[in-house]
Formats: sequence, structure tokens, C-alpha cells
Amino acid sequence: MVIDRKECAKLLRENGEFLVLSHEHPDGDTLGSAFALCEILRLMGKKRAFLCCDKISADFSYMTDGFTPDEVKNPFIIAVDVADVKLLGSIADEYGKKVDLSIDHHLSNTYYAKNNFVEDRAAACEIIYELAAELGVEKNRYMRNCIYTGLSTDTGCFRYQNVTPSVFRVAASLAEDGVDNVKINKIMFETKTKSFLRLEMIARETLEYYFDGKCAVITITQDMFRKSGSGEDECYPITALPRQIEGVLVGAVIKEQKDGSFKVSVRTEDGIDASEICKRLNGGGHKGAAGANFGNDYNEGKKLLLESIKISLDGIE
Amino acid sequence: MVIDRKECAKLLRENGEFLVLSHEHPDGDTLGSAFALCEILRLMGKKRAFLCCDKISADFSYMTDGFTPDEVKNPFIIAVDVADVKLLGSIADEYGKKVDLSIDHHLSNTYYAKNNFVEDRAAACEIIYELAAELGVEKNRYMRNCIYTGLSTDTGCFRYQNVTPSVFRVAASLAEDGVDNVKINKIMFETKTKSFLRLEMIARETLEYYFDGKCAVITITQDMFRKSGSGEDECYPITALPRQIEGVLVGAVIKEQKDGSFKVSVRTEDGIDASEICKRLNGGGHKGAAGANFGNDYNEGKKLLLESIKISLDGIE
Repeated sequence: MVIDRKECAKLLRENGEFLVLSHEHPDGDTLGSAFALCEILRLMGKKRAFLCCDKISADFSYMTDGFTPDEVKNPFIIAVDVADVKLLGSIADEYGKKVDLSIDHHLSNTYYAKNNFVEDRAAACEIIYELAAELGVEKNRYMRNCIYTGLSTDTGCFRYQNVTPSVFRVAASLAEDGVDNVKINKIMFETKTKSFLRLEMIARETLEYYFDGKCAVITITQDMFRKSGSGEDECYPITALPRQIEGVLVGAVIKEQKDGSFKVSVRTEDGIDASEICKRLNGGGHKGAAGANFGNDYNEGKKLLLESIKISLDGIE
Repeated sequence: MVIDRKECAKLLRENGEFLVLSHEHPDGDTLGSAFALCEILRLMGKKRAFLCCDKISADFSYMTDGFTPDEVKNPFIIAVDVADVKLLGSIADEYGKKVDLSIDHHLSNTYYAKNNFVEDRAAACEIIYELAAELGVEKNRYMRNCIYTGLSTDTGCFRYQNVTPSVFRVAASLAEDGVDNVKINKIMFETKTKSFLRLEMIARETLEYYFDGKCAVITITQDMFRKSGSGEDECYPITALPRQIEGVLVGAVIKEQKDGSFKVSVRTEDGIDASEICKRLNGGGHKGAAGANFGNDYNEGKKLLLESIKISLDGIE
């Protein structure tokens, strides 16, 4: 069932025990939403617990340290920022069919829950912010920090296309009431681990330009992860790098998987459809960012990738 | 004379011809303020021209391309985002004593102008935004883009300590009315030149850790500029890098100057005073960022730098 904010608030008021689920590989928005929601529930005098299939990075300790879960027996189950049951990861089988309420900002949400409250927002945290107001729960600093975390991480610190007037207005209100935005920005956007720096150096050595510099490709192998002490979870900024280079219209990062196969992440400038490039490789995604699997033959996969990129580049000329 | 917004607006209404000055090495805020102000004046039916001692980067062409200066004979002279006459650069001698009005957000402003309208804001553009409202001038998209440029560049895209609720509110209002924030963010924060990438790679090879990883040092030589095709103007992101590394409390970048001498830029975490580190080397600056000159002996200079850093690190233990 599709529900609105008022109906969502009603469900929170009516129930007494809650279990809040976040998606696998938890990021700032799923965690910020989950812990802000848990805090709302606590302030309403409810019992609440939290579950995620993966370990939470120590970067988020300012959210997790302040959290002591209640014992819940037959909880009302809420998934936040989870567009699809599969994204619950290893707890999908156990909880996937039992989700009572999904609160999400992805229009691609599959409406898997009994009740689905989905709004097209930059971050799920934006929805939680308004839910608190709807419930008449006053936001304390901890909750504001949780909400700010989702808002800033999902918008690349107010940099991406998804930034709306509402995003800035929520940020203004959080800042007005007091929020540790500088501390959070530092953790989320400024700090680089030594292992990441090593990985980035090694990976950047592989940078290749094609088609008069309109395409740039970086390759990351498992051996590089071993040598740098880094891992898949630190790759994100490298994925963005090739397309950030002046003159580059299509950026690709080819990553070797643990099983020896290769995956490619493609990022494109406006006017070139990354999902089309990846569809020709049996992958898919969005206009600006898409992906595909290569199989185990790096050279053959890259050849097909470059052919597909060329078709799209030729299309704009 | 110190004046307020109403008095500032009165001066703009009373005069007919204006010359707007920006500071040397012009950045997004001095240019955004200057071109937004020129647009306000144009919409008021005034004549206006613009002057800066340095060439404006092509990055700002979306502001400069739309600008055709009027011929002005005996203009009312306004300096924007210029805290001190010296910052006018090579036009300081000619114009320094003739500035009729200084509009600025630096509390360190030396009140050199006949009229000084100084407010403690994140960006001078924030002041211009409110001045437009005071004057009843409707902001068009061009003006909004100029204002957004100053607001975003002076706050590191809403990341720095200087971000206030007002900054977010102005951004919300600009976004509400329509602004090319994504395009501007891309130019200001996302695009990396190939020469910068080469310089960064070469410079990062010199990364050294000291004092159990609490200090990191990078060295940039003139030879590296030559090899990479990059230059001093592209160095800024590298200056910030050492201190961004996990566990690093003091980051230093030593840069060889054209005359063969060395300069150091020091960045520190909260609790360590960069200006104290640099004062011991006869330099100075702020708590979080400071600098000093080394002379021509790299090894001796670095030895003294590390000794000074050690004193400050010992001080916190």
C-alpha cells in the first residue's frame, strides 16, 4: 500500500516496538535516517532496535555511540532508504517479506513493504526531517546530526544535481538550531586514509586516454587492493575521477572482482548516456552513471567497452 | 566612514556612473560580487565598468561573457571583497586612495575607503544579495549565478566553518528562483586539468610521514611544474592534502619558488596553532593555515620546520 506522511506518522504513533533496517554497505543516508528515526521513536516513548547486515564504519561513531537498542519482541519493522528487498543484503531472506513500512526517497522503490511511504527527495533524511515535524517531535542535536549526515552525503555536500531548494532549507534550519556540520563534513568529505592514498596512487598509474582525450580509463586490480591495504569500500572517489578530468566526456573505472571477473563503472557528461554504453555490454544504470560486468577476459571486455563508448561519442559529433 | 546597508543603497541610487574593482588574483567571490553588483547597477539604469589588475580565468566566462562595460568618465569607485588597498594589486597606486565605497565581508578590512560597508559574512556575495533586495532590484538568472559563485566558492561548496544558516537560506532562495548551481559546481569543484593531475602524481611521490604519522610533508619543485606543465595557480588542492590524511595533525607543503628559495604552507588540525609553527620560522598566518619562507637551503629549512612542528606536537601531549 502506498501511504503519505500523515498515514506514516499514524503507524508510528499506533505501534509500540520497532525494528529499523538499513541497506547493505550502509552509507550516511541510510544510517542517518535510521538513527534519526530511532531517536524520534525514543522521544515518543517507544522501544526501538536497529539492524544492518554489514558492519558500520567507525566514521559514523558519532551516531552509533549514542545508541543503545531496546529489547523488542514482536516489532513493527521499518526499512529506511531501502529501494528493494535485495538491498537488505544477507538479512533479506529473513526480513524481506516482513517489512511493515518502507520509508524511501528512490522513485525506483519496488513497493515491497506492507506500507510504502516514498517521496522523490535528495535524501531519505529529508523525509525523516519532515516526519519529525509531522509527529511534533522536537529535534535534538543528535537527531540533527543524523539528518545532516544523510542530507550532505547524498548530495556530495550540496554539490550534485539532486540539490533542491528544500535541501538548502532543511540545512538552514539544522544550522539555525545547531548542528556539527563542520565536524561531519571533515569526516565524510575531507579525511583520506593512508591505504586509500596508496590505492589512488597505484590506480592512477593505469590512467589511459582514448579518442582524443574524450575518454579516460582507470583499472583497479585485486593485487592493488592487496598492495595498498585498501578495499572496495574506499573506491568511490576513484570511480568519479576519470570523468572529472578536463575534456573527458566518458570516464570508466574497471575493477577486478574477488572471483577474477571484471566490473566497469562508467560516468558521463551531460549529453552522453552512460546507461546506453553499458546496455551494449548487458549492463545498465542511469544517464550519468552506469555499470556492467565483463567476465574474466580483461582485454576483450575493455575492447568491447571502448567500442561501445566510441558509438556514443560518434553519436554526438 | 562606516556605513550600513541603507546608506550603501543610497550611495548607489544617488550616483550615475560606477567603476567596480575586484582584488588581485580574482576568485569566485570578488568576481561574483563585482559582476552581480554591475548587473544591479545596469538594471537601475546606471553606467558601470569593471577593473581588475589580473587576467580573469576562463572558468568564469559565464560571468564575463555576458558583460559589456559602459564608458564611464568620472565614476563613483566601489571595491568589492577587497579588505586592504594593497589587495588591489598593480592598480593600488592609481585607485587606492580614490575608492568611494568598500563593500566587504572581512572583519580585517582596513576601512581605507571614503565609505565602508563591512559585514561579517561567509561571502561578499551574501552582502550583494541583500543589497539587491534593499534596492528593490529583481535578481535575474545571470545575477543569481554570480551570487551563487561567490557563496559556493568562499564556503568550499558549503563545507567550511564559515557556513551559517543565512548562507543556506540565500542558497535556497537562489535555487528556488533558478540557478545553474550544478554547472557552476562542476567548473569550480569537479574539473581537474591534465597538468594538475600530473603535478599531483609527481608531488605525491614525495609524501613523507613524521612523528608517528602525525605530520605529513609534500615537496613541490620548479622541475615538477616544468615536467607536469602545471603551475603555482593549480597548487591549492595539493596544499590541503597532507592534513587531510587520516591521523595527520600537521600537514606541510614545501614549494620551491622561481628564484630557487622555498616557501612552506602549514595546515593544522584544531588544537595546534599553524601560525605558531610558522612564527618560529619568521612566518605567520592563521590558527589553521600559515606560511613561512625558507631561504635557498631546502634541507636546513625542512629541519627547522620539523623541529618547530615537533615543539607544537609535544605541546599537546
